[in-house]
Amino acid sequence: MEALDYHAEERRKAEFDVEEMKIVWAGSRQAYEISDRVARLVASDPVFRKDNRTMLSRKDLFKDTLRKAAHAWKRIIELRLSGLFFSCGMFIPAIKGQGNEEQQQKWLPMAYKMQIIGCYAQTELGHGSNVQGLETTATFDPETDEFVIHSPTLTSSKWWPGGLGKVSTHALVYARLITDGQDHGVHGFIVQLRSLDDHLPLPGITVGDIGMKFGSGAYNSMDNGVLRFDHVRIPRDQMLMGVSQVTREGKFMQSDVPRQLVYGTMVYVRQKIVADASCALSRAVCIATRYSVVRRQFGSHNGGPETQVIDYKTQQSRLFPLLASAYAFRFVGEWLKWLYTDVTQRLQANDFSTLPEVHACTAGLKSVTTSATADAIEECRKLCGGHGYLSSSGLPELFAVYVPACTYEGDNVVLLLQVARFLMKTVSQLGSGKKPVGTIAYMGRSEHLLQCRCEVERAEDWLKPKVILEAFEARAARMSVTCANNLNNFPNQEEGFAQLATDLAEAAVAHVQLIIVSKFIEKLQQDIPGKGVKRQLEILFNVYALSLLHKHLGDFVASGCITPKQGVLANEQLRLLYSQVRPNAIALVDAFNYTDHYLGSVLGRYDGNVYPKLYEEAWKDPLNETVVPDGYHEYIRPILKQHIRVARL
Amino acid sequence: MEALDYHAEERRKAEFDVEEMKIVWAGSRQAYEISDRVARLVASDPVFRKDNRTMLSRKDLFKDTLRKAAHAWKRIIELRLSGLFFSCGMFIPAIKGQGNEEQQQKWLPMAYKMQIIGCYAQTELGHGSNVQGLETTATFDPETDEFVIHSPTLTSSKWWPGGLGKVSTHALVYARLITDGQDHGVHGFIVQLRSLDDHLPLPGITVGDIGMKFGSGAYNSMDNGVLRFDHVRIPRDQMLMGVSQVTREGKFMQSDVPRQLVYGTMVYVRQKIVADASCALSRAVCIATRYSVVRRQFGSHNGGPETQVIDYKTQQSRLFPLLASAYAFRFVGEWLKWLYTDVTQRLQANDFSTLPEVHACTAGLKSVTTSATADAIEECRKLCGGHGYLSSSGLPELFAVYVPACTYEGDNVVLLLQVARFLMKTVSQLGSGKKPVGTIAYMGRSEHLLQCRCEVERAEDWLKPKVILEAFEARAARMSVTCANNLNNFPNQEEGFAQLATDLAEAAVAHVQLIIVSKFIEKLQQDIPGKGVKRQLEILFNVYALSLLHKHLGDFVASGCITPKQGVLANEQLRLLYSQVRPNAIALVDAFNYTDHYLGSVLGRYDGNVYPKLYEEAWKDPLNETVVPDGYHEYIRPILKQHIRVARL
Ligand SMILES: Cc1cc2nc3c(=O)[nH]c(=O)nc-3n(C[C@H](O)[C@H](O)[C@H](O)COP(=O)(O)OP(=O)(O)OC[C@H]3O[C@@H](n4cnc5c(N)ncnc54)[C@H](O)[C@@H]3O)c2cc1C
Ligand SMILES: Cc1cc2nc3c(=O)[nH]c(=O)nc-3n(C[C@H](O)[C@H](O)[C@H](O)COP(=O)(O)OP(=O)(O)OC[C@H]3O[C@@H](n4cnc5c(N)ncnc54)[C@H](O)[C@@H]3O)c2cc1C
Repeated sequence: MEALDYHAEERRKAEFDVEEMKIVWAGSRQAYEISDRVARLVASDPVFRKDNRTMLSRKDLFKDTLRKAAHAWKRIIELRLSGLFFSCGMFIPAIKGQGNEEQQQKWLPMAYKMQIIGCYAQTELGHGSNVQGLETTATFDPETDEFVIHSPTLTSSKWWPGGLGKVSTHALVYARLITDGQDHGVHGFIVQLRSLDDHLPLPGITVGDIGMKFGSGAYNSMDNGVLRFDHVRIPRDQMLMGVSQVTREGKFMQSDVPRQLVYGTMVYVRQKIVADASCALSRAVCIATRYSVVRRQFGSHNGGPETQVIDYKTQQSRLFPLLASAYAFRFVGEWLKWLYTDVTQRLQANDFSTLPEVHACTAGLKSVTTSATADAIEECRKLCGGHGYLSSSGLPELFAVYVPACTYEGDNVVLLLQVARFLMKTVSQLGSGKKPVGTIAYMGRSEHLLQCRCEVERAEDWLKPKVILEAFEARAARMSVTCANNLNNFPNQEEGFAQLATDLAEAAVAHVQLIIVSKFIEKLQQDIPGKGVKRQLEILFNVYALSLLHKHLGDFVASGCITPKQGVLANEQLRLLYSQVRPNAIALVDAFNYTDHYLGSVLGRYDGNVYPKLYEEAWKDPLNETVVPDGYHEYIRPILKQHIRVARL
Repeated sequence: MEALDYHAEERRKAEFDVEEMKIVWAGSRQAYEISDRVARLVASDPVFRKDNRTMLSRKDLFKDTLRKAAHAWKRIIELRLSGLFFSCGMFIPAIKGQGNEEQQQKWLPMAYKMQIIGCYAQTELGHGSNVQGLETTATFDPETDEFVIHSPTLTSSKWWPGGLGKVSTHALVYARLITDGQDHGVHGFIVQLRSLDDHLPLPGITVGDIGMKFGSGAYNSMDNGVLRFDHVRIPRDQMLMGVSQVTREGKFMQSDVPRQLVYGTMVYVRQKIVADASCALSRAVCIATRYSVVRRQFGSHNGGPETQVIDYKTQQSRLFPLLASAYAFRFVGEWLKWLYTDVTQRLQANDFSTLPEVHACTAGLKSVTTSATADAIEECRKLCGGHGYLSSSGLPELFAVYVPACTYEGDNVVLLLQVARFLMKTVSQLGSGKKPVGTIAYMGRSEHLLQCRCEVERAEDWLKPKVILEAFEARAARMSVTCANNLNNFPNQEEGFAQLATDLAEAAVAHVQLIIVSKFIEKLQQDIPGKGVKRQLEILFNVYALSLLHKHLGDFVASGCITPKQGVLANEQLRLLYSQVRPNAIALVDAFNYTDHYLGSVLGRYDGNVYPKLYEEAWKDPLNETVVPDGYHEYIRPILKQHIRVARL
């Protein structure tokens, strides 16, 4: 029997080899095969069922997560996969990056085998972005050779760490190191929180969950926690000593290992976040695209079928740039993976020259991709009309679980300002002979970029990568240089930087968008096999770049990079490109190779069989267990029967 | 004892009379006094407690709503207030607008007294925006003088109506009227759904709840429902006969009452939605502003306090335009209220001349204000950093409960396209001697607007309302005229309209933003008493207009309305304006006069005592009932103790 497939006709329309595109999306044939295998395993395992999550109470939801995590761990061992669950994010990477050899040898195997479960306890009630302002103290006591970890104020309570509230046995605690009355700033300490026998908090430790968060599932399945210390003692060797040390005598010393080594971890984490952005975005786009093909509204002629909403130009101009962004973020994420290995090698060779550029580039990419993805998920939800508001569409929870990515690992605005600082420094050094390299190399050609003129005369000129690249370079360079000039009008740089912060953040965005555009172009210069695959990517590239150009038209035109007329031509070209994407839209989201289980969306079903399934889902709600609702006799009936006892006032 | 007030210092800084501003915000002294009294009553009544809502299961949440609604109803009677609870939106307005006199006399009193509870059942699984495509049928049976209401397909199931699932006894059902085999399009029918004795669904009726929606509280406290009919019979006089009738013989007749009468209801509903937008937006802004004053991060000098995050220019440029928008939407909402009475009077006098303009203007304002508000709530959440992600911040639920306003009562994009149609019609009639009136009057000066030049030479020139108004008029006129010219390049108008839909929607936005700007200016022309009040409103007006100009700089510059240099000057002026808003920020949100109960946010507390309360809230989570979580013995311990039974594969 052939399976039902409402999208079959759409799939036939595709002008490229979807199987080959799946490999491009995955990064390699091997990556494709692994992810495909794992996704199928998970989808077919009833323990991983997730369609009931939004109906569970907080406690049941949390317990369900524990159950899944335990099962996942078991399956990982059985299948000899690698992976880490109860994934408390940064505990292990931080020990790797900041611990010395001994510490790594002692703690990492326990953490890998899950004999201990660790969380990353940096943020406090009073301090998140400003890590140097943390208040928890770690005071060295030379008499006992211990640190005393203490929470001196309410605002010094650790607050937010994932896995802290109920699960973790250990925490990597960031605290101010104090020796002999002197404050040496913030360092990391491994602190055991709970007994390994009965999981009870150790003396001096108050630990709990910080309560409900956005959404009904999302992070509520996790125990982000609060933690207070009342003079808790830990041995001296539980301070992470890779970068600085405290000796037996209580002497504080910086190690000869350069501090920059910790940057490796940061690049690693950020490339992961950018990869996650492309996953979340592609997931939302896949749902909205499939539903936009199924959904028909208006435009019936003589009783024929109505128009598929994906055929409306407004729907296309909202959806297709997001589809293109998913691919763009995927490729820049791939490049970041390469950058991580490159940085690691350089660090090992004591080459720190690229670090500032790498820092700015990863900070910027984290900020721009997560902000765009958060907005895009909500736009995809709106693209699904009323039904997008149902939990069964999968989009509300995807949004709720995704948005904190704009805040954690660096607030997105704070990060943009860091990028801007790097840009201003680069501009100020332009005359000095120091040649900008890597993603900032274009600044070396700023003389040209400040006066070049875009050559577009006809709409199709906008298809040339060279033309697009130069327009984006010119925009980024001009915005940075303008900011730098304006800074000079202030009595001091810091005051100027504070006053012009908004313009600076906009210049940073322009720089980062240029990076994404240029990495997409580099991808297109690679050899990409498969019928029509490269052609589709070229179309998506143009959609990505020209939709950005349209969105930021003010930047491009006001800085004279392009003329108003050229802006109009770009827009015309964009409309033509949307028509080229249209027949391939379903195949382009099929290429993500997501199982229905992973998508978790009735609207995004592979087979497009939306309506009967929506109808089925509805009846599962606990409220439908009875036709007459609980509360009828107490609250509804007395009103209908006009039997309300009214107090005389 | 003096109450704790961390904001006292900020309140002292205010340069205007907050009490007078409260009256401006409320609309009048009387409106202020009523809303103040009701808000205090609600806040002091323990039944209306809402801080536990996100922790309730779906069934308990729903029951809690019933309890509150019943209590509210009782209090309304006791206090002789007017109001309507179990508010199922459009049931009553629709009977008022579309029922004939007899029907109004029969049904409205029962509905007002809540002897019956009605919902508005228009949308179906398969049709929302396209009301004319609804599939439910109402077939007249002349033998019994009844209509037979039937759901012929799965997609014809009613889907979404609020209050339908569990509460309503009656529904206003929209269905295709069929007499003698002929389809007369969609009409409204009053159908009883449940027995008034035991609340059980009547024969032939299947009714239930459609399941979980966005958020943990939000619309999950409500029973949006699904409804199917199996040949359900209702008497003929339950078709709403105000506009068309079916006679005893089964003859279909249009009444002499013009169809346009129903527009009155629509204007009423939309002015309500715009008013709601200003409420939701001001609520979010109030929370973000108060927290931005409490929150300090970075910038400590010599151990002094850190910088309040509201002092960062990026924070200001994200927050203050939203504050200004709250006021702008408030005033345009006030004007819409006036417009509603004006339209009602005109309709009664059989003057339908302004209807197209009124329709376009209300559709456009609904679209633009709700879209902006939805985005703004999420931006306010991000402005609160990590803590904004906690339910106790109030912002996640505010977002979840608000966003469907972008979809219901007309999808925002569909509405913009309706506005665009009106704009194109106006342009095409420009030569014809028909003079555009009301909000579109500026088009009558399009000859001037197409070639006028903005006179700004210095930043402060941008403070003049006349200059701003002309720039917005020129932008709107030019975008519309450009679209109209481009339409002429297509073989037929419909094809052109479809192809240029995105440009048309952008032109519609420009037109609507102009309306908001011009109504703000009209407000400023009124006599506004109170020290410094008018001055603050002028500042907010300028912030609103110039921040829009900055956001849409591409429109203004590309169409030649302003030069790039003038764009730069606007931006400079904007920065100065932010500094003027800063000392008044707290007082400007105090003027909303929201109780802490209404705000429902720990971050937005009037007294600014954020951290201890956040800490307190956390411990209330059910997960904190035990220190060792449920699930430890089953799932965590076996892993820690490495006692997992692994299947041999
Ligand atoms: C779901 C989630 C999981 C988390 N997991 C962990 C974890 O496992 N471990 C952990 O330690 N932490 C964790 N965190 C905390 C997270 O890292 C912080 O919330 C984050 O660093 C942001 O800091 P903040 O909350 O202090 O924001 P704030 O800095 O208070 O931001 C508030 C506002 O001020 C602005 N602002 C702040 N400084 C500046 C400046 N210098 N210039 C301009 N604007 C500024 C911001 O842009 C923002 O608009 C988590 C948070 C969330 C939401
Ligand atoms: C919380 C909530 C409460 C509700 N309450 C009620 C109620 O009480 N009673 C009731 O009857 N209904 C109710 N509704 C339903 C609501 O009115 C519809 O969802 C709404 O009309 C949108 O229609 P839709 O869902 O069919 O969207 P669709 O029309 O399917 O929209 C899907 C996409 O197609 C696009 N689109 C559609 N047509 C066009 C076009 N012509 N041109 C360009 N783009 C187009 C839209 O922009 C959107 O992106 C409620 C909905 C919600 C979410």
